[in-house]
Amino acid sequence: MQSRDHHISHRYDQELEALRDDVLNMGSKVEEQIDNAVRALTEGDEGVAEATIREDHAVNAMEVAADEKAVSLLARRTPAARDLRFVMTAIKTITDLERIGDEAEKIARMGQQLGGRQSLRRNQAISTMSEAVRNQTRQALDALAAMDADAALRIHQGDAKIDEMFEGIFRELLTYMMEDSRNISATIDILFVAKALERIGDHSKNITEYVIYMVHGQDVRHTDVNHLDLDEGEH
Amino acid sequence: MQSRDHHISHRYDQELEALRDDVLNMGSKVEEQIDNAVRALTEGDEGVAEATIREDHAVNAMEVAADEKAVSLLARRTPAARDLRFVMTAIKTITDLERIGDEAEKIARMGQQLGGRQSLRRNQAISTMSEAVRNQTRQALDALAAMDADAALRIHQGDAKIDEMFEGIFRELLTYMMEDSRNISATIDILFVAKALERIGDHSKNITEYVIYMVHGQDVRHTDVNHLDLDEGEH
Repeated sequence: MQSRDHHISHRYDQELEALRDDVLNMGSKVEEQIDNAVRALTEGDEGVAEATIREDHAVNAMEVAADEKAVSLLARRTPAARDLRFVMTAIKTITDLERIGDEAEKIARMGQQLGGRQSLRRNQAISTMSEAVRNQTRQALDALAAMDADAALRIHQGDAKIDEMFEGIFRELLTYMMEDSRNISATIDILFVAKALERIGDHSKNITEYVIYMVHGQDVRHTDVNHLDLDEGEH
Repeated sequence: MQSRDHHISHRYDQELEALRDDVLNMGSKVEEQIDNAVRALTEGDEGVAEATIREDHAVNAMEVAADEKAVSLLARRTPAARDLRFVMTAIKTITDLERIGDEAEKIARMGQQLGGRQSLRRNQAISTMSEAVRNQTRQALDALAAMDADAALRIHQGDAKIDEMFEGIFRELLTYMMEDSRNISATIDILFVAKALERIGDHSKNITEYVIYMVHGQDVRHTDVNHLDLDEGEH
C-alpha cells in the first residue's frame, strides 16, 4: 500500500503543480497583453491594437480552464491546510488576472480611438505609469511562484506610488483640458487609460494579499499591512 | 449509524445554508451602501457620506468572515457536484460584493468633493442609472437566493442598458465641459461616479454568470449568453 499511497501523493503534487503553472502562464499572457496594449496606444499601431483585443479571448479561455482545474482538484483531492489555501489563492488570482486582461483590452481600444493625436499618445507620465504597473504585476506573480510573503508585502506597500502617479496624471490632464476645450474628448480617453492602469495596479496588489494569506494563513485584506508582523503567522 | 449519518448531513446542510445567508446578508448591506452613497452624492449629505465610508469596513469584515466559512466548509465537508459549485459561487460572489462596496465608498467620497455644486449633484441621468444599477444588484442576488438561472440570464442581458446609460451620461458631461471650462474638474468627478456605477453593474452581471454556472454546471463567462440554450445544461 505504501507505494500506492506514494503514487497517489505524487500525482496529487503534480496536479497542484499543473494548477500553479496554469496561473503563472496566464500571468505571463496578461503581462504581454499590458505591454501590447500600451504599445498600441503610444505607437498608434492598429495591428497591435487589434491583436490585443483579439487575444483577450485567449486570456478568458485560460481563466475558464484554470478554474476548472481548481474545482476538479477540490472535488477529487480534498486539499487541506496550506494546499487548500494555495487552491483558494489560485482561484482568486485567476479572477484578478482575467480582469487585468479586460483593462488591457480597454487600453488597446482607447489606442484605436485616439487617431492621429500624437501629443496625447506619447504622454510620458502614462508610459512611466504603465511600466510601473507592468513591473508590479510581474513581481506579484514572482512572489506567488516563490511563495514569498515578504516580497508580497513590499510590493503591496509599493502600490501607493502607482496611485500617486494616477493623481499626477489626473492633474496634468485637467490643466490640458482647461487650456483648450477641443482637447477634452481625447484627453478623457487618456484619463480612462490612466484609470485602467490604476486598476491593474489594484488587481496586482490583490494578488500580493492572497500570497501573504497563502503563506501565513493570515487574511491581510482590509488590515493595515504596514503594521503586520508576518513572523507571527502560521508557517 | 443511519441517524448519525442523518445528523451529519443535517449539519452539513445547515452550514451550506449559513454560507448562503452570509452572502445574502452581505448583498443586502452592499445594496444599502449603494443607496446611501448615491444619497450622499445627490443630496450633498455629509453625514450620510461619512457613514457610507465608515461602513465599508463592515462590508470588508463580512467578506473575510464569509470567505473563512467557505474555506472551512471545503476543508471539513468536501462538498461535491452542485454543492461544490455553490461554494465556488459563494466565494466569487463575495469578491464581487466587496468590490461593489468599494465603488459605493468612492461615490460617497465624490459626494464629499462636490461641495455646493447643486446642478451637478442633481443630475437626473445619474439618479436613473443608480436606480438601474441598484435594481440589477438586487435582482442578481434574488436569482442567487432562488438559484434561478433563467432570471440570471435575463438580468445578464439587461446589463447592456446600463452600459448605454453610461455612454449617454458621458456625452452629456462632455458637452457640459466644453461649454464652460470652469465645469471641467467637478464634471469629471461626476464622470467617475458614472464609471463607478457602470462597474457595479459589471459586478452584478458577474454574479448572474456564477448563478448560471451553479445551476447548470456550465461556465457561461465569455460566451455569448444570448445564444445559450439553458435546457441543455446539467440539472
